Amino acid sequence: MATKTMQDLLIEDLRDIYHAEKQIARALPKLAKAVQSETLRQAFEQHVEETKGQIERLEQVFEELDTRTRGKHCDAMEGLISEAREILEMGLEPEVQDAALVAAAQKIEHYEIASYGTLHAYATACGLEKVAQLLEETLNEEKSTDQKLNKLAIGDINKKALAVSGKKAA
Amino acid sequence: MATKTMQDLLIEDLRDIYHAEKQIARALPKLAKAVQSETLRQAFEQHVEETKGQIERLEQVFEELDTRTRGKHCDAMEGLISEAREILEMGLEPEVQDAALVAAAQKIEHYEIASYGTLHAYATACGLEKVAQLLEETLNEEKSTDQKLNKLAIGDINKKALAVSGKKAA
Repeated sequence: MATKTMQDLLIEDLRDIYHAEKQIARALPKLAKAVQSETLRQAFEQHVEETKGQIERLEQVFEELDTRTRGKHCDAMEGLISEAREILEMGLEPEVQDAALVAAAQKIEHYEIASYGTLHAYATACGLEKVAQLLEETLNEEKSTDQKLNKLAIGDINKKALAVSGKKAA
Repeated sequence: MATKTMQDLLIEDLRDIYHAEKQIARALPKLAKAVQSETLRQAFEQHVEETKGQIERLEQVFEELDTRTRGKHCDAMEGLISEAREILEMGLEPEVQDAALVAAAQKIEHYEIASYGTLHAYATACGLEKVAQLLEETLNEEKSTDQKLNKLAIGDINKKALAVSGKKAA
């Protein structure tokens, strides 16, 4: 029995998100390159840097917990990234592809928001204040990235995608 | 080229979430049976019913768009549900398992929140008011389910999981 206590569960889930973050750090630069909108590409590139910081923060958490830093294959993130990659194979107009890529990125963000939300709650319940604080920092970053992507999508990306659609449909 | 315009993208994503909802409707009753906490089980069972309503709402959306109702395999939801199922194989104490199941359910909710958020934005951009309104109804339900699960987790489920952990650790 590998997992028994709440703290074991916390460690299991930390390993899941650690692997998920590593997958994101590998996949996101490729997605960023495919982006047409300058603002969106910058947002993706900025999140690559942020992700690297979040990976380091997780390593700090493992250290705090006196546990070996390692990942555990995250099926859900594999599925999310595979869906994002498929977008590049769909032969979309660049503006429509941008709209699809923001959506895929927001799904990834929401996985992270749910994960870090849970991890923060576990750490708080276990009375691990320092760990909870580190996880909350990342949680807030993920929420803010999602809000930024949302603004980009509603403000500009979807409108450009629609404009191209109109021309094609006409 | 199957997908070209914004509305095609909307339809593609509707098929993805339609398949995802069907997967949830099949998987959730099994997860509900494994739950120890009466309140949490009720929340899961209620969400099974809600999911059925959301599937019908999607069918209504397909009708509004004059498009055949069909799903498209959703890899991400497959991964999320596979992670939830794995919890049942971990040999956890029932209270700790409950904490893990709430977390898995919240990840599923967040996938749906991201999906319906995007779908709502697409429909709004395309000027499809009725469709946007239907999607917003589901979006609000998913947000409210996530908040309810969050309250249960922080309020009671995690505390019970911790109490059992304490006994086992002692």
